[in-house]
Amino acid sequence: MLISVINPNTTSSMTGKIGRCARSVAGAGTTIEALTPTMGPASIESHYDEALAVPGLLTEIAAGERRGVDGYVVACFGDPGLDAAREIARGPVIGIAEAAMRTAMLLGRSFGVVTTLGRTRGRAWELVHRYGAAAACRTVRASEIPVLDLELPGSAARDAIAQECKRAVAEDDVDVIVLGCAGMADLCRELSDLVGVPVVDGVAAATTMVEGLVRLGLTTSHRSEYAPPPPKRYRGLLRDFQIAPA
Amino acid sequence: MLISVINPNTTSSMTGKIGRCARSVAGAGTTIEALTPTMGPASIESHYDEALAVPGLLTEIAAGERRGVDGYVVACFGDPGLDAAREIARGPVIGIAEAAMRTAMLLGRSFGVVTTLGRTRGRAWELVHRYGAAAACRTVRASEIPVLDLELPGSAARDAIAQECKRAVAEDDVDVIVLGCAGMADLCRELSDLVGVPVVDGVAAATTMVEGLVRLGLTTSHRSEYAPPPPKRYRGLLRDFQIAPA
Amino acid sequence: MLISVINPNTTSSMTGKIGRCARSVAGAGTTIEALTPTMGPASIESHYDEALAVPGLLTEIAAGERRGVDGYVVACFGDPGLDAAREIARGPVIGIAEAAMRTAMLLGRSFGVVTTLGRTRGRAWELVHRYGAAAACRTVRASEIPVLDLELPGSAARDAIAQECKRAVAEDDVDVIVLGCAGMADLCRELSDLVGVPVVDGVAAATTMVEGLVRLGLTTSHRSEYAPPPPKRYRGLLRDFQIAPA
Amino acid sequence: MLISVINPNTTSSMTGKIGRCARSVAGAGTTIEALTPTMGPASIESHYDEALAVPGLLTEIAAGERRGVDGYVVACFGDPGLDAAREIARGPVIGIAEAAMRTAMLLGRSFGVVTTLGRTRGRAWELVHRYGAAAACRTVRASEIPVLDLELPGSAARDAIAQECKRAVAEDDVDVIVLGCAGMADLCRELSDLVGVPVVDGVAAATTMVEGLVRLGLTTSHRSEYAPPPPKRYRGLLRDFQIAPA
Amino acid sequence: MLISVINPNTTSSMTGKIGRCARSVAGAGTTIEALTPTMGPASIESHYDEALAVPGLLTEIAAGERRGVDGYVVACFGDPGLDAAREIARGPVIGIAEAAMRTAMLLGRSFGVVTTLGRTRGRAWELVHRYGAAAACRTVRASEIPVLDLELPGSAARDAIAQECKRAVAEDDVDVIVLGCAGMADLCRELSDLVGVPVVDGVAAATTMVEGLVRLGLTTSHRSEYAPPPPKRYRGLLRDFQIAPA
Amino acid sequence: MLISVINPNTTSSMTGKIGRCARSVAGAGTTIEALTPTMGPASIESHYDEALAVPGLLTEIAAGERRGVDGYVVACFGDPGLDAAREIARGPVIGIAEAAMRTAMLLGRSFGVVTTLGRTRGRAWELVHRYGAAAACRTVRASEIPVLDLELPGSAARDAIAQECKRAVAEDDVDVIVLGCAGMADLCRELSDLVGVPVVDGVAAATTMVEGLVRLGLTTSHRSEYAPPPPKRYRGLLRDFQIAPA
Repeated sequence: MLISVINPNTTSSMTGKIGRCARSVAGAGTTIEALTPTMGPASIESHYDEALAVPGLLTEIAAGERRGVDGYVVACFGDPGLDAAREIARGPVIGIAEAAMRTAMLLGRSFGVVTTLGRTRGRAWELVHRYGAAAACRTVRASEIPVLDLELPGSAARDAIAQECKRAVAEDDVDVIVLGCAGMADLCRELSDLVGVPVVDGVAAATTMVEGLVRLGLTTSHRSEYAPPPPKRYRGLLRDFQIAPA
Repeated sequence: MLISVINPNTTSSMTGKIGRCARSVAGAGTTIEALTPTMGPASIESHYDEALAVPGLLTEIAAGERRGVDGYVVACFGDPGLDAAREIARGPVIGIAEAAMRTAMLLGRSFGVVTTLGRTRGRAWELVHRYGAAAACRTVRASEIPVLDLELPGSAARDAIAQECKRAVAEDDVDVIVLGCAGMADLCRELSDLVGVPVVDGVAAATTMVEGLVRLGLTTSHRSEYAPPPPKRYRGLLRDFQIAPA
Repeated sequence: MLISVINPNTTSSMTGKIGRCARSVAGAGTTIEALTPTMGPASIESHYDEALAVPGLLTEIAAGERRGVDGYVVACFGDPGLDAAREIARGPVIGIAEAAMRTAMLLGRSFGVVTTLGRTRGRAWELVHRYGAAAACRTVRASEIPVLDLELPGSAARDAIAQECKRAVAEDDVDVIVLGCAGMADLCRELSDLVGVPVVDGVAAATTMVEGLVRLGLTTSHRSEYAPPPPKRYRGLLRDFQIAPA
Repeated sequence: MLISVINPNTTSSMTGKIGRCARSVAGAGTTIEALTPTMGPASIESHYDEALAVPGLLTEIAAGERRGVDGYVVACFGDPGLDAAREIARGPVIGIAEAAMRTAMLLGRSFGVVTTLGRTRGRAWELVHRYGAAAACRTVRASEIPVLDLELPGSAARDAIAQECKRAVAEDDVDVIVLGCAGMADLCRELSDLVGVPVVDGVAAATTMVEGLVRLGLTTSHRSEYAPPPPKRYRGLLRDFQIAPA
Repeated sequence: MLISVINPNTTSSMTGKIGRCARSVAGAGTTIEALTPTMGPASIESHYDEALAVPGLLTEIAAGERRGVDGYVVACFGDPGLDAAREIARGPVIGIAEAAMRTAMLLGRSFGVVTTLGRTRGRAWELVHRYGAAAACRTVRASEIPVLDLELPGSAARDAIAQECKRAVAEDDVDVIVLGCAGMADLCRELSDLVGVPVVDGVAAATTMVEGLVRLGLTTSHRSEYAPPPPKRYRGLLRDFQIAPA
Repeated sequence: MLISVINPNTTSSMTGKIGRCARSVAGAGTTIEALTPTMGPASIESHYDEALAVPGLLTEIAAGERRGVDGYVVACFGDPGLDAAREIARGPVIGIAEAAMRTAMLLGRSFGVVTTLGRTRGRAWELVHRYGAAAACRTVRASEIPVLDLELPGSAARDAIAQECKRAVAEDDVDVIVLGCAGMADLCRELSDLVGVPVVDGVAAATTMVEGLVRLGLTTSHRSEYAPPPPKRYRGLLRDFQIAPA
């Protein structure tokens, strides 16, 4: 089984970390490829970044389809481009926010999200509602750490995140912590030891979820909303995204 | 006051129609410019199209900011790129699904949406939930008319849409109809006469809403989530979307 | 276009202020009349006051219909009598809580209401739910200022309100403030400058909304729930409210 | 124990029927008085009627307070004036929609309401949401019987109502029927025998609920929202509703 | 009328207290029997305890059916076994959480629950959602008092509970308190005097509710979900729970 | 890795089928044991059956803990005893309704459940709400097939189920089907081929989910609600369920 884990930003050090996390939980016989798009933002910290990460992500998925990839993980906590990706991929596509929130709901009555910049909390809450987690999610806390600081050895990022995890348990009474950025994937065990509750990293969670779906023989329902997009003319800079009639 | 009404698809005949509708309701002293992006899909009928319409839309908004546009209408019923647009525009930005649904809720207890392809209903329902309209929206009905058929004189589009409007009133007991595509903007009065309930076109509704906000001196809260995006490096095909440090 | 802005309480100094606010945002060609009912409470600070403000309000609307008024604003934050008013008015009728909350939702992910007495918060929350704002409204804060204190020059009202606005931003993390009383209409700009987020006054917001609907040719759906009331016998003190058979 | 059952309309034959139903379920030692207001509409079939029924209802409650009434039933399915009544009554006040819906939820997973005119369904749904019954209420069906036809011997009312009750069970799969008008109170047993599921009349249900609360020593929380209304000046036709300072 | 109040735990001193509370509110002509099961846990402080209290409870109800009991109260705040009990009882069955929450909603806009161990709050919130009380319930506070400490004279239980009741009013702004354990039934009046808002004990509330339903001639809808269980073979330790074919 | 799949009813032929389904999706290195309790009902078709299946289930889990089982699947669509099981198991415990519904939400916007007897739909809807699936689940359809008929070769069960699956797609417009009984686990592929949308069997889905959690090193949060139950005295028939002090 071949699973593509796509980092929708263009920072390849982060892709490396994401790939290692995915591989650490993949089953025997599963190959993980971790990919960095060739276009788009160095990190995703705004709706603007998120929107402009999608073309690069879709390019990777289109290429994956030609290579026979079995399933995809979209490794950014805003789950950018998920619906579009599901239309063009034969196999399942899972976003890490979706995976992490759904996994957290298997582990306790309530969870809290600990994320990077405060400005991304609106999107996190929107996903909470989309994934049916409104009754379970008690807080979305920001550490105010820029995404790429997570790549710097010796930064204060880890401490700031640990601090918010502790507050989520102590002040918001959550049973489980969800990490709100793919760049935090390597902190999962350490934070769990520190705060004494399960800590869920979406990259790992999504990897096992995609594997599970492939093993179940299940994929996106391509019956209506997620059928392949109707072919049509595309213009200008984006003309290569045009889908030719079958 | 200068309002840009942006058609996120690249079909300029549709832009012409949209502009006429917006102008027909604009107040004295308001200039409407109707714009077609230079890149992207000819129509928006899938999540894939919608995602790839956003870069072209954002380019138009960035250009509008340099020209001093006071407010924007995003004239596609999926409200593509709305959050990203709000980050980069100083003035208000309103999507036509948002405008139409919120207007419908001022006119009756319930409404129904009549749209083009059935595959777009999922996105419409997602927006219903986002805009707090879940208790008011009783149905999203598809006429199964492709978007660009609305541009063809003598097509069966009008009849198919009228049929679904009548069914929404008779079978789903709705007080108000919302038209689910910018390409239907010119059908509004005629359908209202036919079905005997208010019929809301989002292009016109959004135009008066943006005008109202500008007159009130109100715009998007740029305090946190919708603050201007943090500058950062963009790569590849999309490198020109990079926002330089201020 | 003639718009009646009706102050449902019987304090004419407040009506004067409300009229000035409405006129300051009305478009060219729109006439605003600000009206005080001839019966009812001097201010609305309880469910009892609110219920007993409705007959006076309905009398003004019935009179407006005879004069050819195009649309109405109900200028009390409890939106008293809104449904009844919609049955007897040909044109649109908008309450200021509805207008303010729906406007706030166009400007940010979240808002907070700052109101007068704490006892009115229950009604505000009820309206939050009715208008589909439950996911957006994070707080309803009371300044504990009686309504008519807002009419006294030199009162502490302004400071108390400013204080709660600041707390709503700092403690409840709201993007937008909604003012919870028509008597605060003149404080809007000043408070916005002070707290650094958009502050919405419902009187002004409702005025532009009614204007917009009239320009769109839209009014309440009179198909079923909001059809004119069936004529019938009324007795006693209220016999003049009887609607004669057509 | 003295319980006032107030018919908010001014049709005394309906009051007679309501009183008989209340007395048939009252416990030993409970006196029921059934009251008709001296002002207001002959029946309540619109938001307009409902709003104008409230002053007469409040007059009866104010008089009841002077007589030492222990608790009140508001016997109209729109629950008019309930919040205002709770402010001025020392004892509990229960509306028949509230009582019927809450009782139905004790008896099964789901219920359906069968009411008079279709135009009143909007209000019924609003109350469904207010009373936390949105997951339980599957339908609100109208028989299109005017309220006062329920007073006419030999009318087709009974058959039309029975028909809708049967449809609610067969087509909407409800476990319980709620009768949507005080004028249907005497049909309860007969309909239950006919359709084979519990049929709840709000007049009887509210009577036992008020009795229960009085026996429990419980009444409305007068701590904040439902504290007695602040005294203030009332003008014009409604000046006698003024509450003098204590 | 004969009402069985069943304490689902096996501590008979608690049953005694529960019976006294029920009798203190029962009407003339109502006999209360308070029962302790012969099997199961001494107190219910976990999901495990709750699940294992159900067989004993069902045994008591089956026996009650043979004796002609008219209705049942399940006197544990987790409402264990309520759905199963409703299938096998001809008369109504009410849980004390359901009774207390529904009663609280008659008395104010909001309530708070004060319970025993913090670990039981998850179940309380689940019941809040089931009973349509999500908009009304503002807090579930734990006193961290083990259930059986409520049976010890001179324990610190009373003070700890009073403390949480005061905090619910002062910090969470609730109109009404709901006591979250049958073992607190005797504290109701005293706490109400202390905190100045209505305090609802579910044992008493459920008793009047069952009485009311019996007087109304209403019981569980046995049409589908709550029809008597289909007979079938039971094995092992639980073979005596087998229901023989009729 | 050792996973126990527990059939909460006592029909071992069904356990055999469940075990085969679980094994068919388990990864290399995972051992599946399929277990039948020694006490309880032959099938689960009522709340009564469900409640009385829990002691047998808990006995199996307690035994599994002594054997070092890594995770558990509860293979009945009512998810009986799930919360209690989570308190006593060190590893994760997943119910098949939870697994199937959460899996379906990964595959499309909407799903429908096809189940056995109509009387079980109430429980299914309750779980839909608990698992945050209210916006996604469009229908719960009953085939009116008794559970054990699924064990009979040549029964009409398969056709009746297929019929409801087709209706769910055609009439309720669902993207995905969820099978509402563990006894349908072997019909999954065949039904999917027939109806042309993904069909999810909870037994297989839960197996991959438990495997995934174990691989992720995640289990139930034992911090508060799901901490091991406090030890206490148990009486009578159930005395062996007593948990001794540690």
